[in-house]
Amino acid sequence: MKLTVKLQDHSYPIFIERHALEHVADFLDPHRKYVIVTDDGVPARWVDLLQSQLSDARVITFPCGEANKSLATYESVMEQVISSHLTRKDAIIALGGGVVGDLAGFVAATYMRGIDFYNIPTTVLSQVDSSVGGKVAIDMAGYKNIVGAFHQPKAVLIDPETLSTLDQRQVSSGLVEALKMGLILDERLVELFEQEPLDLDTIIARSIDLKRAIVENDEKENGQRAILNFGHTIGHAIESAYHDVPYYHGECVGMGMLFFLPDPTLRARVQRILERLRIPATPAYDPKALRAFVEHDKKGQGDSVRAIVVDHAGTCRIEPMTYDQIETILERSPYEK
Amino acid sequence: MKLTVKLQDHSYPIFIERHALEHVADFLDPHRKYVIVTDDGVPARWVDLLQSQLSDARVITFPCGEANKSLATYESVMEQVISSHLTRKDAIIALGGGVVGDLAGFVAATYMRGIDFYNIPTTVLSQVDSSVGGKVAIDMAGYKNIVGAFHQPKAVLIDPETLSTLDQRQVSSGLVEALKMGLILDERLVELFEQEPLDLDTIIARSIDLKRAIVENDEKENGQRAILNFGHTIGHAIESAYHDVPYYHGECVGMGMLFFLPDPTLRARVQRILERLRIPATPAYDPKALRAFVEHDKKGQGDSVRAIVVDHAGTCRIEPMTYDQIETILERSPYEK
Repeated sequence: MKLTVKLQDHSYPIFIERHALEHVADFLDPHRKYVIVTDDGVPARWVDLLQSQLSDARVITFPCGEANKSLATYESVMEQVISSHLTRKDAIIALGGGVVGDLAGFVAATYMRGIDFYNIPTTVLSQVDSSVGGKVAIDMAGYKNIVGAFHQPKAVLIDPETLSTLDQRQVSSGLVEALKMGLILDERLVELFEQEPLDLDTIIARSIDLKRAIVENDEKENGQRAILNFGHTIGHAIESAYHDVPYYHGECVGMGMLFFLPDPTLRARVQRILERLRIPATPAYDPKALRAFVEHDKKGQGDSVRAIVVDHAGTCRIEPMTYDQIETILERSPYEK
Repeated sequence: MKLTVKLQDHSYPIFIERHALEHVADFLDPHRKYVIVTDDGVPARWVDLLQSQLSDARVITFPCGEANKSLATYESVMEQVISSHLTRKDAIIALGGGVVGDLAGFVAATYMRGIDFYNIPTTVLSQVDSSVGGKVAIDMAGYKNIVGAFHQPKAVLIDPETLSTLDQRQVSSGLVEALKMGLILDERLVELFEQEPLDLDTIIARSIDLKRAIVENDEKENGQRAILNFGHTIGHAIESAYHDVPYYHGECVGMGMLFFLPDPTLRARVQRILERLRIPATPAYDPKALRAFVEHDKKGQGDSVRAIVVDHAGTCRIEPMTYDQIETILERSPYEK
């Protein structure tokens, strides 16, 4: 299946195909010079499979984990790219999850003021969402994605087979972002989560196609793209507050969505899906402490946030809320009838 | 005087006016929140003059010199920008020479994936050339400008009065870049260098207007912009080889131009201008050693360079040359009749 992201200056394809990684020459020129950037959480079989099909591809590996989406790792990868003598005609391939895509993408965006970038996501989260959109970044001074660029990939290659080496918790966490897409935009996608068995390939394709449409309408995130933050306002705060548990990002987004589903019937429906995915229940928390994390996360941008609220599955609205209103919402249990 | 750089998505003005820095409210909104990035080579009188006219502007100062166009300085400035809680609606102002513009511009290009950037150049080189064009960068692993972005300023404010605190050698070095502009594009500008006394304001305006036209035609440096490298191929090599003298950048460009002026009459004319500007004569050098610096500078991009050759003042041509041909040129003295 091939989708096309149509942007003003740089349209690009998204290929979604089980076993695509076994014949990459159908999707990119195997005779260009590449650097493959990956992390040590990606099984060697996928790295070797990719590298073996390219005539000139060096592999740069960094330790996995959000802590490595740092300037120090950026410097290390950049120095290795420089020592590989990549030119403006060569390209960088990201092979991994969101951290790899974000970091390798930022290296590609800034090496020689920008060279070609291919993204081959190998986690659910990156396959259903983050690999498309061109947002690349690293973290600094405790702020996520505070330093980065917009740098669209030349192509995105999604092979659901690469998910076979993930554990179930990673898969479920990533699927929450697809569920999020369904809740804000597409009730049919929500229904896919209620079928037996789960049709992973269809969920991925439907979700990334929604992401594609949003990115086309709002490349630089000035407006509509904000709805993708559904579940993230409080979700990010939970992720930060409980980072030593740790919860997975998607688990926190799942918890965070429940606060912005005012209809009890829909909330119960979403809760059933989250339980099926074995997303943990929201832990006991201090509303004031979580509110402080929400404020920190917004980087001091004014005294309100744009909360995303879903009244009916498949539609959403943006509602500006003060931090006091957020605290009021936090004071209610997300499971309140 | 106001020029406009017309680009597809982001046109911006260049204001050229003696004493403009005394009334900046005519050029930018004094009530926005700003961070002013400068270095300790910029006299406090200019920094204070600017800051005193803005209602909310923090100053970040780093040590002057090309050595500080580094990732370490980038990190330090970025951390201070983060701690200032700049939002996407705020802006960064560069006040200084090319190093300040490049570094502050790269911070602006990557903070929150890009915020507004104003450039107030205070050296001749940045006033006649580097402040317009949107090329921002830092150095890494011994390569100049290897890491960077294209990020056009919102406006450029050129006040020739700020040059009054420079010493004559700095002024002359910067003027070589304006002379370069004349040689490749505009004989009238070359003639301005033969008048008594030098009309600095006219030279600056004429030179930056030529740069504006080139940038408009070739925003991302795919083609025509390459002619701006006239004098730089060998000039950069001299700058690197003799970095412990040290020569100024413009001095090296002046030396480097002489190698690519095949007409002896024109070469003698340019030599007279360089002598008037007190640009030092090219030192004795080892052709093979300089050739190695040329190759290093090109970052391993193929086995030839695009040399810029000026046959007649005001016109130029691009001539691909192998490194062997460069070495042959180096084996002749630049002062050969």
